[in-house]
Amino acid sequence: MERRRPIWVKDAIEKVMEWKRLGSVEWISINECDNRFLGEPLISDHDVPHFDRSPYDGFAIRSEDTLNATSENPVCFEVIDEIGAGQVSPLKVSQFQAIRIMTGAALPQGADCVIMLELVKEEQQENKKTIMIKRKVKTGENVSFKGEDVKKGDRLIPKGTIITPGVKALLATFGYSRVPVIKKPIIGVIATGSELLDVDEPLEHGKIRNSNGYMIESQIVRAGAEVRKYENRADEIKSLCTAIETALSECDYIITTGGVSVGDYDYLPEIYKRLGANVLFNKIAMRPGSVTTVANLNDKLLFGLSGNPSACYVGFELYVRPIIRFWLHSEKPYLTKAKATLRTDFPKPNPFNRFVRSRVTFDMDKLVVEPVGLDKSNVVSSIAWANCLMVIPGGTRGYKVGDAVDVLLFEDQTGSDEPWIEIHKSSKL
Amino acid sequence: MERRRPIWVKDAIEKVMEWKRLGSVEWISINECDNRFLGEPLISDHDVPHFDRSPYDGFAIRSEDTLNATSENPVCFEVIDEIGAGQVSPLKVSQFQAIRIMTGAALPQGADCVIMLELVKEEQQENKKTIMIKRKVKTGENVSFKGEDVKKGDRLIPKGTIITPGVKALLATFGYSRVPVIKKPIIGVIATGSELLDVDEPLEHGKIRNSNGYMIESQIVRAGAEVRKYENRADEIKSLCTAIETALSECDYIITTGGVSVGDYDYLPEIYKRLGANVLFNKIAMRPGSVTTVANLNDKLLFGLSGNPSACYVGFELYVRPIIRFWLHSEKPYLTKAKATLRTDFPKPNPFNRFVRSRVTFDMDKLVVEPVGLDKSNVVSSIAWANCLMVIPGGTRGYKVGDAVDVLLFEDQTGSDEPWIEIHKSSKL
Repeated sequence: MERRRPIWVKDAIEKVMEWKRLGSVEWISINECDNRFLGEPLISDHDVPHFDRSPYDGFAIRSEDTLNATSENPVCFEVIDEIGAGQVSPLKVSQFQAIRIMTGAALPQGADCVIMLELVKEEQQENKKTIMIKRKVKTGENVSFKGEDVKKGDRLIPKGTIITPGVKALLATFGYSRVPVIKKPIIGVIATGSELLDVDEPLEHGKIRNSNGYMIESQIVRAGAEVRKYENRADEIKSLCTAIETALSECDYIITTGGVSVGDYDYLPEIYKRLGANVLFNKIAMRPGSVTTVANLNDKLLFGLSGNPSACYVGFELYVRPIIRFWLHSEKPYLTKAKATLRTDFPKPNPFNRFVRSRVTFDMDKLVVEPVGLDKSNVVSSIAWANCLMVIPGGTRGYKVGDAVDVLLFEDQTGSDEPWIEIHKSSKL
Repeated sequence: MERRRPIWVKDAIEKVMEWKRLGSVEWISINECDNRFLGEPLISDHDVPHFDRSPYDGFAIRSEDTLNATSENPVCFEVIDEIGAGQVSPLKVSQFQAIRIMTGAALPQGADCVIMLELVKEEQQENKKTIMIKRKVKTGENVSFKGEDVKKGDRLIPKGTIITPGVKALLATFGYSRVPVIKKPIIGVIATGSELLDVDEPLEHGKIRNSNGYMIESQIVRAGAEVRKYENRADEIKSLCTAIETALSECDYIITTGGVSVGDYDYLPEIYKRLGANVLFNKIAMRPGSVTTVANLNDKLLFGLSGNPSACYVGFELYVRPIIRFWLHSEKPYLTKAKATLRTDFPKPNPFNRFVRSRVTFDMDKLVVEPVGLDKSNVVSSIAWANCLMVIPGGTRGYKVGDAVDVLLFEDQTGSDEPWIEIHKSSKL
């Protein structure tokens, strides 16, 4: 039987990232850009606001005319015009004149401040409208100045940023009816294993339903890529080989699940040979997912993930996700890293680096974490409850309530600029 | 001029939530269920695994036959069959017999443990295959027992849970080729304001591009609802009235942006009157978004959000999002609440509750926060950079580096079961 040499998680990630590639740009409608990754830095092409505006309903006046205004000696101004939002007054405000101005409208010529509607008394005298002002107004008071929000030429959002509602608001402000985004990488998915039933087949003794395929598809979409699914006849080497060859010609990266171990029915090692693929590694010093295998063929990567659900899930998040996020020009392609405080004992000794499906929550301003479900590679329930991986370094003898551990967050979009790296290398490989 | 009476944030949320409604269930393909909300609790209809399985490649044997096995006195077993994953052996393992078993395959009758492939020596003698075992194997060793992951009847995932990759894996495991999800509420969106240019129109003096409409649409989708967009002739009262009436007949909730203030061109108050809608409140003791207005007509709510981008954004997250999430049967419909430590001074005195667009990050196991951009209601850039609202209670005189503040997270899907509630009511309404 083949003896495999395990490598460190850090080295496995490095070997994968040597084959990283950057995606190209495509232009799409602003209506379809949610959660896509910006293909160009967003640089403002005009000041925001691009004219001095009133942030309130009120009257535009000259501050110098209010110098002597007090409650005892209110000053009278003649209202010479009215500006709705979006309108521009042709008139210029002169001494003791005022122009009624609505929220968002452009400050008229001559005026240098706005007094709020609530602070004046309006009077109608025949055809003349006047207001009485009882206080001093400073120059610039209640004016949103040209460029105070954004200056023309400001670099607002870097390339590779995920488009949130707030980013979309900026895109609209700068007239992006079409938005440059990074084209999604296409990830081919092939689930192998003759024990797999399709989701709508009845259970049989010895067989289980294929959950990995659906799970991985969701993980791919969450990471920001596009899925292409390939069928193959279960554990039939020729059919699997053909499926992979087709996928190689149609996709940017390929994921297979199952078949990477050393069993008699684990065909992937043989298929890598037949295809002439170069195996980067086929064993990693981690649990679950130690059999995770990655090979390259020309510039494409074949990710051979475990057939065990938990191992498959972890393998994707550690090795495939960063390749996808780098493609999308993200500067932080790895899962968001943080520290969290253990809420329960974790008494297991850990000869290997262990990625435990866990749940983090906020306790005031601190992150706390506890494992969920059974910590075995073939378990599916723990993945459903987890929102992070708790990382337990190899060579440790268990942890206690209150200990700090590393966590890698699944749902947080921020990401990290470096992966989780082993610190304790106490257990030799 | 109308004088409005402000109410507390807490009371405004309560008034809105009095009109909360629960969405109904629809069944959709498992391929389309990502990020939808589960319409029924997921209860397991079978044990997982549903048979005793081998988690490794190895040999299924009877543990009692290994009692005397040592390196000095290895025990010989005859290999009588081979079980690939998905296969079932018709044979029963008897004394000193072994069956070769692949990862994931069902344990054959008679056997009570598995010895890993790596630990045995295989020999082929004519037509007879044997293995030598050099150690004791315990009963149950290397067996994944029926039901150890999930027991039949376990309540695995509550109704109203968002479908993540892990939840989808469980759905596939239990044969949900079609998945019960909550039908999304349909939210009508009408942007008002004659100062608004469409995203593809060139800039004009006094006018700005409509960013609120696009922003709100993304917020609606992120919250889990569906958008329906209505056009209306800018600030023309009849056209706006017609648009709202159409939206009322086609949508579950309506959002308007702009037009809720007390200016001469703020038509919403007049429109509520004409429609016979009951105004729940039209002023809230908060910044930005104090003009946020909510009215009900029969069982439908009309959310009148501010025309200012930051105010509009905040109004949506505080008042519309929980209505959407409750509809989706979420038990935590409010934005995820946490505490964070200020990274900069925030010296402003705060007569009102202030929701400051800010950015939280992890510093080891602690959340830290700092405001981003300009803290004015009409600012758009700060929304793009923010991932949370920092909440500054009214009546406070500013904060210093290291102070703890409440934060409400935009992107975290966990949610809270209660909204942010004012504690310092020091400033009278």
